Amino acid sequence: MKQKETIMAKEYVVAILGATGAVGHRMIEQLAASSIPVKQVKLLASARSAGKQMQFRDQMLTVEETTPASFEGVDLVLSSAGGATSKRFLPEAVKRGAVCVDNTSYFRMDPTVPLVVPEVNPEALAHHQGIIANPNCSTIQMVVALEPIRQAFGLKQVIVSTYQAASGAGQSALNEFKDQAQAYLNGEEMQAEILPTKGDKRHYPLAFNLLPQIDVLEENGYSHEEWKMIHETKKIMFGDMNSPAVKVTATCVRVPVAIGHGESVYFTVEDETATAEQIRAVLAQAPGVVVQDDLANQVYPQPLQAEGKGDTFVGRIRPDYENPGAFNMWIVADNLLKGAALNAVQNAEELVKRGLI
Amino acid sequence: MKQKETIMAKEYVVAILGATGAVGHRMIEQLAASSIPVKQVKLLASARSAGKQMQFRDQMLTVEETTPASFEGVDLVLSSAGGATSKRFLPEAVKRGAVCVDNTSYFRMDPTVPLVVPEVNPEALAHHQGIIANPNCSTIQMVVALEPIRQAFGLKQVIVSTYQAASGAGQSALNEFKDQAQAYLNGEEMQAEILPTKGDKRHYPLAFNLLPQIDVLEENGYSHEEWKMIHETKKIMFGDMNSPAVKVTATCVRVPVAIGHGESVYFTVEDETATAEQIRAVLAQAPGVVVQDDLANQVYPQPLQAEGKGDTFVGRIRPDYENPGAFNMWIVADNLLKGAALNAVQNAEELVKRGLI
Repeated sequence: MKQKETIMAKEYVVAILGATGAVGHRMIEQLAASSIPVKQVKLLASARSAGKQMQFRDQMLTVEETTPASFEGVDLVLSSAGGATSKRFLPEAVKRGAVCVDNTSYFRMDPTVPLVVPEVNPEALAHHQGIIANPNCSTIQMVVALEPIRQAFGLKQVIVSTYQAASGAGQSALNEFKDQAQAYLNGEEMQAEILPTKGDKRHYPLAFNLLPQIDVLEENGYSHEEWKMIHETKKIMFGDMNSPAVKVTATCVRVPVAIGHGESVYFTVEDETATAEQIRAVLAQAPGVVVQDDLANQVYPQPLQAEGKGDTFVGRIRPDYENPGAFNMWIVADNLLKGAALNAVQNAEELVKRGLI
Repeated sequence: MKQKETIMAKEYVVAILGATGAVGHRMIEQLAASSIPVKQVKLLASARSAGKQMQFRDQMLTVEETTPASFEGVDLVLSSAGGATSKRFLPEAVKRGAVCVDNTSYFRMDPTVPLVVPEVNPEALAHHQGIIANPNCSTIQMVVALEPIRQAFGLKQVIVSTYQAASGAGQSALNEFKDQAQAYLNGEEMQAEILPTKGDKRHYPLAFNLLPQIDVLEENGYSHEEWKMIHETKKIMFGDMNSPAVKVTATCVRVPVAIGHGESVYFTVEDETATAEQIRAVLAQAPGVVVQDDLANQVYPQPLQAEGKGDTFVGRIRPDYENPGAFNMWIVADNLLKGAALNAVQNAEELVKRGLI
């Protein structure tokens, strides 16, 4: 009986759109390590990358140029090729019967598109109409840590300052940053053509510097990354990008780190009797969270230690002694894994588990 | 008449204690550029550095080993050789008639010692008993930006997350950090023997990493750096390290930058009608502050641009749209200049100007 079920289990044709990018590489790895029964993988990218060979498990696959016809027979699309590519191709994939987990920001605020972190709001997957949006990297790691706190103590306000790695801006930004670092150490002038944001008017070196601009700057005074953290958090936690149920503000800063975002998060809870010890205990039981908070042994989250790991690391949890119910904490996660590729694959696993694909 | 006054003006014998360190070097430069009438400079350091030659204006001077007798005939001491050295030698200097501006944390919380940022509380200098404390680097740049806001709108609460450069931990930490960066780029293992804090049990690489520990970690959950930011801010603004007049909390993080601290500061003011535009206008008139806040042209404070400058740069000023009277801003200053050597020399200039030395 068991064997028969296994034999009958559906197997999926999976397309990875943007396979050659920093996140695409990791989507291939995370899919290979996932519980999803994979019949076939198609690697899709722009014409420029077509013909490139990449490995999935023990198979060598050839990257194909993306066209609408690429999605014929595809069950699942994992997409991370930029908003314009998602806009153009995901409706074509949906038309052909595929379900898409999209890592770009393009569909995130569409009220018909669930925005999902599996540890936080997996039930939102049930309402999908072919596209599920993966949240922004800096939002994911924050809500993974805040949701268990919200459930236990109620969450009133969040004030976050981010320390975001170069790889969040893509492989070309990461390469540029490392070239800058070497130039600086050689006493040479640093070249900047990508960071802070590809396509913006001015570019600045990130190496040995801090850039308080991630994504474009908007007329309301916030960067688009800050705006995303505010509204995505509300949508993930309360189903509404403008929900007043929690107040959120953000300052997003790019820092000279390759991989791994840090976040200094100040938050207030409804239960003013909550203690740091209780919060630590709640987080220690929370899915996807590892508490690293042992000051006597100098244990706290660090990007170099988080790189390559799927968990969200939380530490430096301590009360604001002047404000009951208010706390500081420090969160680190691999922005390319939990912040992108892993969360997308986890969403796909939930779709399979819940029979939604 | 004017000429006679100039001729009669007192000239000072100035000792620089810790002359060979990162801050000591800059104290020599800032003293040379100051308005203080200097009769003679004595460069003092540990026995290990004695005999070293260093330049003050057009003179080559020889560094001497510090002994109590070094302070005979000295009028002004600028000190930045570590808390233990200040503890040992500054009382000896005071006993011999000198006035000391101390850049270490040793005397900062002594209620008889003024803790002074000249733009904020120069009047506190009048109460000195021979020692004036220079605040912590991360505190100085924050209060320079917050004091004009406090004066104009009232200040209720401050929540700060810092992005602090390696040089704040001294020249040896800066050297270690640069060696780590080169090792990382070479694909070699990074060595860590100093950071996060000299003398602590465990050491971690700072290059391409973030270390949420500055100074030692205390049993209350805060690092000593965070504790300093909280209590120094209260003492500078309200004369009392435990003043309830403003609530302050801090998260301090060392980032892989050589020179220039960044700070993401969230603050609330009493006047809930205050606007970002009004705050920008107040800061534009404030002493020691340069507003860099032009999003359309991607103008915002950056450490690489602040390095070598004496001002405190403020930008990204914007409201928390969900909380009237609440704002975010981003502050950058050269931690070795305004955060240390320049502030010390400015304190000394004020002492001279006010006839307090």
